[in-house]
Amino acid sequence: MNYTTLARSIIRGDRKAAARLISVVEDEEEGYGEAMDMIFSASGRAGVLGITGAPGVGKSTLVFELAKGFRKEGKSVGIVAVDPTSPLTGGAILGDRIRMSELSSDPGVFIRSMGSRGGTGGLSLQASATVRILDALGCEEIIVETVGAGQTQVDIMGLADTVVVVTMPGSGDEVQSIKAGLLEIADIYVVNKMDLPGSMSTAADLRAMIDLVEDWKGWKPPVLLASASGARGLEEVAGSIRRHREWFSDPEAHMERRASQARKEIYDIIASGILRAISSAVTDEEMGELVRLVAERKMSPYDAARKVAGSALPGADLYKAL
Amino acid sequence: MNYTTLARSIIRGDRKAAARLISVVEDEEEGYGEAMDMIFSASGRAGVLGITGAPGVGKSTLVFELAKGFRKEGKSVGIVAVDPTSPLTGGAILGDRIRMSELSSDPGVFIRSMGSRGGTGGLSLQASATVRILDALGCEEIIVETVGAGQTQVDIMGLADTVVVVTMPGSGDEVQSIKAGLLEIADIYVVNKMDLPGSMSTAADLRAMIDLVEDWKGWKPPVLLASASGARGLEEVAGSIRRHREWFSDPEAHMERRASQARKEIYDIIASGILRAISSAVTDEEMGELVRLVAERKMSPYDAARKVAGSALPGADLYKAL
Repeated sequence: MNYTTLARSIIRGDRKAAARLISVVEDEEEGYGEAMDMIFSASGRAGVLGITGAPGVGKSTLVFELAKGFRKEGKSVGIVAVDPTSPLTGGAILGDRIRMSELSSDPGVFIRSMGSRGGTGGLSLQASATVRILDALGCEEIIVETVGAGQTQVDIMGLADTVVVVTMPGSGDEVQSIKAGLLEIADIYVVNKMDLPGSMSTAADLRAMIDLVEDWKGWKPPVLLASASGARGLEEVAGSIRRHREWFSDPEAHMERRASQARKEIYDIIASGILRAISSAVTDEEMGELVRLVAERKMSPYDAARKVAGSALPGADLYKAL
Repeated sequence: MNYTTLARSIIRGDRKAAARLISVVEDEEEGYGEAMDMIFSASGRAGVLGITGAPGVGKSTLVFELAKGFRKEGKSVGIVAVDPTSPLTGGAILGDRIRMSELSSDPGVFIRSMGSRGGTGGLSLQASATVRILDALGCEEIIVETVGAGQTQVDIMGLADTVVVVTMPGSGDEVQSIKAGLLEIADIYVVNKMDLPGSMSTAADLRAMIDLVEDWKGWKPPVLLASASGARGLEEVAGSIRRHREWFSDPEAHMERRASQARKEIYDIIASGILRAISSAVTDEEMGELVRLVAERKMSPYDAARKVAGSALPGADLYKAL
């Protein structure tokens, strides 16, 4: 299969071709790099918005409402929902995306859910490739939704120009989230479910934490109250997103963030390519045998890694490194 | 520096040597593979317990109490606290480990906090190497504490023989956590802060979710109520841990879990070795230039990845894969 044909179709606006190339990337098939070069050249116009937060805070509903708003402005919208992975089954849990069906019948909306199928840095690479593919397809606004806490949010900063962190009143989660690193990735805070008791104090706590940081380098994250399901506060959220985008769009500014996005993507691509090189050089049987020896403690995992790398990457002297 | 000397000192019980080799692994220095082979051969005796859960549920207090319990039994204890990463500063947030100072003055306790210093799969590999090093040092019980939600928990199953998922009453978190994949990794549930309203119903909800799974293959996760800070319910937790360990210790059983741990570790070692090969083959300046070109959209990240892999791994034909 020549994926460059697929890339050309995508650039002409073929949605089915886009779905197909996303699957190629997800399945980690070989030889789609050239197609992605073409996609890359044709992308760069979409606004990319990241929505993250703990499970249950109402991210999906907010994504739905923001997407509806973009549609009212006549913009085509791509939605990438990155779901947590079940470590045992490898399957994605789709969550309550039922209301998304209203959007999914709209030809101006492209929705894709993804869960990691394993692979080092795999999910993050799949998500960034998907964003680029939707961008090349012609989506003007792309919303990436991830479930966040701890390390997982790092990815969304590598994908999005504007990151909205969604929280809700109660349980003291907000302060803990900030401790866990959320303070450094949020461009905008939304305290969702504002009708629940404690929403004002949650917002006040967040603002107090934000005030502790002295130098915001030109953008201090606003804290907004909203009720996504009650359609309240959404215009303020959309307005803040617009303002952040204007601020961020200056091509000369923010090179640091863009460079760190680029660096991460380059490394993810290399890691993914190497894993593919391994799986084509080492048979499942050979790998299974090494895994068994390590699991039975008859071989060191470092020794097994050397053997695998030796078959998969002959000529690359990795002994010292491994 | 010859790290095998360090490994020999660790096996003789030298704590400083252990701290040093952990730093070598964290800093991703080259050439410690042979030392880790020796460590691997000398390890395998420690019981490895994983404690995970959302921020704020009281994991650290539980770790502290369990460690005190092991000490009363006369066992030496290693504690590995894996902290979430600040994506911008690269620094670990240490959290409220103040009460750990009581333990850290005890020569029978070895405590190590770690945060990712970047690198694909890096944190997970660092944590598993640290567990092996503490095992070879002679720690009889090793407790690994991670902040969990979504994807990040996958790691703890790769490290621990027994995984305790800690939750607390309220906020409906427990059901969401289970949706997010926690149900499949927990060997034991602890509803901590049992004095808060709703602890009974949280436990009942968890049990109901557990009951929905028909085949637990010999171990059905118990749901225990506890107050780590009030020292209540801790003996039941310790008892369940003991029972799970007995069940898990049968060397013939559970090969599936052990094999998936081994497979993950082999891949992590390869990825880490390759990243090191890259950073020694490509200068910071060269990498910076490629990153700049990608960030300015003058070069595709796939193209940059090919160039980096070409210099770092000559002889390895990765073009097809990338």
